Amino acid sequence: MKISLVGVGRVGGATAFALVARAIPHELVLVGRSRERTLGDAHDLLHAAALVRPIRVKAGDLEDSAGSDIVLLAASASPEAGGGRLAHAGANARLLREIVPPLAAASPGAVFVVLTNPVDVCTYVALRASGLPPGRVLGTGTLIDTARFRALLSRDTGINAQDIRAYILGEHGESQFPALSVASAGGVRFSPGDVTVRSFAEEARQGGDQVKRFKGYTNYAVALSAAIICEAVANDARTVLPVSSLVDGFQGVHDVCLSLPSVVGRGGVERVLSVDLDDEEAELFRRSAGVLHDVLDQIR
Amino acid sequence: MKISLVGVGRVGGATAFALVARAIPHELVLVGRSRERTLGDAHDLLHAAALVRPIRVKAGDLEDSAGSDIVLLAASASPEAGGGRLAHAGANARLLREIVPPLAAASPGAVFVVLTNPVDVCTYVALRASGLPPGRVLGTGTLIDTARFRALLSRDTGINAQDIRAYILGEHGESQFPALSVASAGGVRFSPGDVTVRSFAEEARQGGDQVKRFKGYTNYAVALSAAIICEAVANDARTVLPVSSLVDGFQGVHDVCLSLPSVVGRGGVERVLSVDLDDEEAELFRRSAGVLHDVLDQIR
Amino acid sequence: MKISLVGVGRVGGATAFALVARAIPHELVLVGRSRERTLGDAHDLLHAAALVRPIRVKAGDLEDSAGSDIVLLAASASPEAGGGRLAHAGANARLLREIVPPLAAASPGAVFVVLTNPVDVCTYVALRASGLPPGRVLGTGTLIDTARFRALLSRDTGINAQDIRAYILGEHGESQFPALSVASAGGVRFSPGDVTVRSFAEEARQGGDQVKRFKGYTNYAVALSAAIICEAVANDARTVLPVSSLVDGFQGVHDVCLSLPSVVGRGGVERVLSVDLDDEEAELFRRSAGVLHDVLDQIR
Amino acid sequence: MKISLVGVGRVGGATAFALVARAIPHELVLVGRSRERTLGDAHDLLHAAALVRPIRVKAGDLEDSAGSDIVLLAASASPEAGGGRLAHAGANARLLREIVPPLAAASPGAVFVVLTNPVDVCTYVALRASGLPPGRVLGTGTLIDTARFRALLSRDTGINAQDIRAYILGEHGESQFPALSVASAGGVRFSPGDVTVRSFAEEARQGGDQVKRFKGYTNYAVALSAAIICEAVANDARTVLPVSSLVDGFQGVHDVCLSLPSVVGRGGVERVLSVDLDDEEAELFRRSAGVLHDVLDQIR
Repeated sequence: MKISLVGVGRVGGATAFALVARAIPHELVLVGRSRERTLGDAHDLLHAAALVRPIRVKAGDLEDSAGSDIVLLAASASPEAGGGRLAHAGANARLLREIVPPLAAASPGAVFVVLTNPVDVCTYVALRASGLPPGRVLGTGTLIDTARFRALLSRDTGINAQDIRAYILGEHGESQFPALSVASAGGVRFSPGDVTVRSFAEEARQGGDQVKRFKGYTNYAVALSAAIICEAVANDARTVLPVSSLVDGFQGVHDVCLSLPSVVGRGGVERVLSVDLDDEEAELFRRSAGVLHDVLDQIR
Repeated sequence: MKISLVGVGRVGGATAFALVARAIPHELVLVGRSRERTLGDAHDLLHAAALVRPIRVKAGDLEDSAGSDIVLLAASASPEAGGGRLAHAGANARLLREIVPPLAAASPGAVFVVLTNPVDVCTYVALRASGLPPGRVLGTGTLIDTARFRALLSRDTGINAQDIRAYILGEHGESQFPALSVASAGGVRFSPGDVTVRSFAEEARQGGDQVKRFKGYTNYAVALSAAIICEAVANDARTVLPVSSLVDGFQGVHDVCLSLPSVVGRGGVERVLSVDLDDEEAELFRRSAGVLHDVLDQIR
Repeated sequence: MKISLVGVGRVGGATAFALVARAIPHELVLVGRSRERTLGDAHDLLHAAALVRPIRVKAGDLEDSAGSDIVLLAASASPEAGGGRLAHAGANARLLREIVPPLAAASPGAVFVVLTNPVDVCTYVALRASGLPPGRVLGTGTLIDTARFRALLSRDTGINAQDIRAYILGEHGESQFPALSVASAGGVRFSPGDVTVRSFAEEARQGGDQVKRFKGYTNYAVALSAAIICEAVANDARTVLPVSSLVDGFQGVHDVCLSLPSVVGRGGVERVLSVDLDDEEAELFRRSAGVLHDVLDQIR
Repeated sequence: MKISLVGVGRVGGATAFALVARAIPHELVLVGRSRERTLGDAHDLLHAAALVRPIRVKAGDLEDSAGSDIVLLAASASPEAGGGRLAHAGANARLLREIVPPLAAASPGAVFVVLTNPVDVCTYVALRASGLPPGRVLGTGTLIDTARFRALLSRDTGINAQDIRAYILGEHGESQFPALSVASAGGVRFSPGDVTVRSFAEEARQGGDQVKRFKGYTNYAVALSAAIICEAVANDARTVLPVSSLVDGFQGVHDVCLSLPSVVGRGGVERVLSVDLDDEEAELFRRSAGVLHDVLDQIR
């Protein structure tokens, strides 16, 4: 299992450390902007790996990523480039359009996992820039929102979070929504109208922004999400994760990436599940897609 | 984590081995009918444990089980005692009524897990003989039928079995039924009328009988079920497992043990979930309870 | 990871169960003498696997083992064939000479692990019958004696058994010996003359016989040893295990299989280590080899 | 398992993330200098934990650490305080003398693990400030140097690093030394005069400095070391780790903390092993102790 990680800032660094701490890859290539800094992280992680597994960690260039099983994209244009969210999205899209083609050429068999924000937009851009089949490019999407939602429901019900089957779907952002009509635990449905449940979904939605207000950015949760996705790919687990990937036809939505429950295995997204949304949720899903289409149109 | 296992025949022996192979207890006490044979198993398992974890394994008497965290009941009256299934149920009930009171007195804080067949009948008898609160006595129930059902659905759908949320409920026996109205995977419901799904439930139901026809008994699957339950208790996992425990009020059913999705943690069954059965399933559940009431009446 | 297991009696059955309980293979083929019985075990294990990992378990013939990564040999001629230990060794050697060539032809890339007793003799016979390179055929050897020895030292010193670096070497039988001159824990040497340490080695040596006296045979410890070896192979762990394999030159010993510390990885025994024995131990090693040569000469 | 972490900068943050990624504690209290920043990390880690285990993560004050099983000390006086290494040591010593007494009062049963540099000096200061028994205060010491050394030997020999029994002892700093006279793998001794082995020890010694040259500080390796120590404590593993703790009598060294192979379990350092050093190594050990005594004298 060779994993390459492009972008070794706060998110990328934490992701690399999560991969080492959980002993996921056999080989880990870090591709960072600053050669010195990346060499420092690579050596530090190599020493850390010595405690758990003999992972070959090295700093490298795009070419060193050749033959990867997984390529993680955590690179980000510097926000100081100016402008608001949209300008940032445009800058990151440009960055991905530049680096993804050579990465895909070097690792034509790899699964690409996008962490760069706005993640749904960047996943779409990376997919189109890669020329790869849709399932091979996916974004961390609402995996972390879903985990947070389940954790809150788990604490409230006293039931293990693994047994809480509830998903946050759509955009990893403002327009996301909980698919309450299919949420259940142990064969007991959660009531879509339950105010506590709705307040948990709201709390999950605001989780990232709250962290940003406190420390200026988020990195640990998204880094561990990416590591969990890598484990599913490495073990060909075919486990169901709400990740962002191409939606083309479901509920009338076309040509955009956003999160639906997806079977994740060695081939990336092996299958996007046609979740049984009710009418209100289907409308929220289409609205979420609309938001993303708008951004994509503007940065084209 | 001290576990005592009473009954070290084919099922008990395999259970003890599963506990050691998965390194679950710190101390394991085997209480068997034949002192010599049990000493042999205890020493053999002690040597096996040396490969994975320093478990103190010993052969002992009922008194040596004192202070256990979990007591596994795998004892069985010899079937040669004659008679059919009912006679066997009666003999095992008599055996449990004899050994459970001193075991419960010796380990008043333990969770009791019943493997002895017929498991629902024996769970009820053990519960009443123990004088313990309902959640502290549970039987392996339909856990293995459910696992088999999920494995078949998993193979058919290409989705990890952990993500297949489908339960076989009621009696671990002929009257069991799949709760198809609440079965789903990744937010997609299984259709209750789907013939393939129904055939898998039927295949799961017949799984044990098929093994019995081939080799005369079953032991590996039920042994591993018991080990999985012990892990949930040891880790206080509060995971949802379909196990047999007292039902008193759900769907009009009273005073009988059978399987419903249950939250299993350090205290045993922490909570029995009021699964959203449809009318047909509720009727099957009551019928299953009726079958067990009949047996319990006959062996009183 | 496809594993085939030939011989599904008490040892083979426990081995198959250990493989399932520890979720080691993806595919497990059982080749047993009785078709019915083996089908029963295969189905029972398939149901057990449903609880932990989707392992494809099936009953099969020698041909079904084709393409295995590991072939476990637990077959044994029935002891009722008469005669003492030597007759039994001869009968098992004849059995292996018959079944190993087609197995090796069907899985030319497999690692063969021998459990059949006398294990050193049978490992040698299997190696020669296979035509495979020496490292690809190994026997469970003194792995279990070593684990037992370490467990006793661990209990006595209060140090984790993984940190007790002490080996029992030579024959898995009467002539085995502890390599005390290289035994240590955390940089502290055990004194070769220490009577407690010597008594533990003696206790380890007699462990198997004691179990046999109590229950007539051993199975759990050797089954878990084989599972541990399979894990080392499956993970290409290159961990050091005292297993039986061809010795040809070390300490003047040639053309016999017995246990030395060996690096076990995907290719089987990747390397036999030239352990630093003192003169007395080297003599015990040669004596152990002599015992095995005698048996091999007699059964030729 | 309640763990409190005092100091949430680069090292502390990475340590907290390692604890979450490896799912070690049930409760994690972060005590940081900046309330806002620490709240941000706590929320981010809480979201991350939702992916693997329901850990209660919160930002708190010293009082919130009450009743901890483990207290991790990663706090550091800001280096801008001026002066060289010695001034930094003095500043950190003053900081620890201030915060350790209330922490020890709040968690009198806790194991204290020191990460703050210079780690041996700070471990000694923390021990004396705590008033706790010697084994209950330990520092990460040469654990990471040892892991690095073993990783290099492992790569060179093709033997799993777990089987490489070689220790770097003494100060976590310039005066450390490899205990080559007791280094072995699988019963084969490494030759103390071997230039390759010596070059690996030298490479391990310089590992940290190299990382510092590249990125200005080290954090990942020391963070994972601390997590590994926490696992040994949480599981009462009684595993042998080279960690820094009070040495009082060994080889004529008194009243100083530095690394020797130590049995680490629920009670912290359960036992410091009297490793069989040769004369040259014993002299290096005394010299290392002398270096630390000098620093301690100067900062008193």
